[in-house]
Amino acid sequence: MNEFELIRRYFSQQPVTRSDVLVGVGDDAAVMQLPGGMQLVTTSDVLVEGVHFPPETAPADIGYKSLAVNLSDLAAMGAEPAWFTLNLSLPEAAPEWLEGFCAGMFALAARYQVQLVGGDTVRGPLTIGVQAHGLVPAGGALLRSGAKAGDRVYLSGTLGDAGLGLRCLQGALPPGDDAGALIEKLNRPAPRVELGIALRGIASSAIDVSDGLVADLGHILRASGVGAWISLDRVPLSPAYRALFERAGGWTLALTNGDDYELCFTVPAGKEQDIARIQQQCFVGLSWIGEIVADAGLHVVAADGSDYAVPSVGHDHFATQ
Amino acid sequence: MNEFELIRRYFSQQPVTRSDVLVGVGDDAAVMQLPGGMQLVTTSDVLVEGVHFPPETAPADIGYKSLAVNLSDLAAMGAEPAWFTLNLSLPEAAPEWLEGFCAGMFALAARYQVQLVGGDTVRGPLTIGVQAHGLVPAGGALLRSGAKAGDRVYLSGTLGDAGLGLRCLQGALPPGDDAGALIEKLNRPAPRVELGIALRGIASSAIDVSDGLVADLGHILRASGVGAWISLDRVPLSPAYRALFERAGGWTLALTNGDDYELCFTVPAGKEQDIARIQQQCFVGLSWIGEIVADAGLHVVAADGSDYAVPSVGHDHFATQ
Repeated sequence: MNEFELIRRYFSQQPVTRSDVLVGVGDDAAVMQLPGGMQLVTTSDVLVEGVHFPPETAPADIGYKSLAVNLSDLAAMGAEPAWFTLNLSLPEAAPEWLEGFCAGMFALAARYQVQLVGGDTVRGPLTIGVQAHGLVPAGGALLRSGAKAGDRVYLSGTLGDAGLGLRCLQGALPPGDDAGALIEKLNRPAPRVELGIALRGIASSAIDVSDGLVADLGHILRASGVGAWISLDRVPLSPAYRALFERAGGWTLALTNGDDYELCFTVPAGKEQDIARIQQQCFVGLSWIGEIVADAGLHVVAADGSDYAVPSVGHDHFATQ
Repeated sequence: MNEFELIRRYFSQQPVTRSDVLVGVGDDAAVMQLPGGMQLVTTSDVLVEGVHFPPETAPADIGYKSLAVNLSDLAAMGAEPAWFTLNLSLPEAAPEWLEGFCAGMFALAARYQVQLVGGDTVRGPLTIGVQAHGLVPAGGALLRSGAKAGDRVYLSGTLGDAGLGLRCLQGALPPGDDAGALIEKLNRPAPRVELGIALRGIASSAIDVSDGLVADLGHILRASGVGAWISLDRVPLSPAYRALFERAGGWTLALTNGDDYELCFTVPAGKEQDIARIQQQCFVGLSWIGEIVADAGLHVVAADGSDYAVPSVGHDHFATQ
């Protein structure tokens, strides 16, 4: 099978056809119509075998997650996903691998009506780059820079489950009853797209937790020129995490492990009813974990009121190892 | 140096600041305003070390070419470049390499006022993915599918020089007086941005020659449901190529080697004056090399009127080797 046949066979049979795609896969570039008054939001993420997923990961999970992490970035901007492109570096044109990859990727694409509009396929080490594009009404994007002193800090879902899932895969934790759900959270994170859109006009800032809560909330604080405290006993943990709490090393994973793709966001005081409504509407738990303060720095407060010393600062690809 | 410092240091000091970029590098995604009535054109290309460039290639040349090949795709659509994102997989955070890479990339970005608005940086084998975004007036994009029987086939510049440059680098050709210019054409191809924009409303189809003339013109023919003949002695060769013609293996490189990034396009009869005007305006030679016909297939006609058998069908990453 040559390159062109490969591209045609797998990537021309996607489940989404949007009327605003004038030229999709197959020309030098894609052409998309834009609705009046909207702003374009664009993001990209790369997944490298052995760095972002273990070599034994199922192709369908790789396909799903490659798109999911980008939709998560769009969600953190409050954008509605529309189109994506795929840059695929493959050691060989393996049909079974591509079938699985496409199945996982297109299942998620169908759910959010996001259409593949182009990309590039080359021979090389297994590397997947996805670029996703979404739309927001002019001025409606949720930025990292809008947090103000007095805003409440919220978090969707629970933290640390993806990190526990990876440790289950690595054999560092027992493959108990919860292992399947934890590994599912690692391989198939749910991008909080509906939540991001619902937070337009409500949240003052937002970010997706891909590098760990401490690192990602830190990005909001720096971009906004503020500080925050969060209360350790308000950080939401799943029953599975609670059951493994001591063996998993306590709070560390929940505070510093990336890969959960929950949204961390700030909301001005007085919007509690909006948050309660959005929580019901989006079928996701929203936890109030702390507050923005004027002075720089992040304080994690333990149950006894003392400062909890956070062990590390999240994922860093180029940290000395 | 950690990942975040690396990104800040090298990619925050770009030379272009566009007023339509509302959020650039540094949030979950970028946000761009779009002018009324315009369509968004988006493309992406991946360059892998050892596949798309020899390991000894200068970082500045890699940076330049990573962006150039994407601007070439936008040019082939008639789009005006606006923004790009960069996905960079690096074995290590090497400051000298990054300095050179950014210098080459940003020099080209400055020339076309295209602004870096985001991306991702990971540790892994050296792989560069660039996604470029441009704008065309609604309906103005140059597609592959518009060629009609009777249209003339045109080509910008000359063909085969980049392929000769690679052979000079590999020591397969003598490092003569022309070697420098040929290697420059390989490492620093000029994206035909002004030409693509000028061809709006004139050309009936267009493609950039990245896989070789025969393969790329073949894409136009299939997309348009037509055929063509081209005349071998009208295919434009540089003086350097003519001087090395026999040692370079005759016509093969000119017809089948990619990497020249010239534009191949079709024009309805009667637009010769437009083409002459555009040639002067864009400072690039435009050669009439053949004609579109109704019957499928591409015929390369030798000087004596016989059919020239084309040796191969261009670059294919997954061809059996």
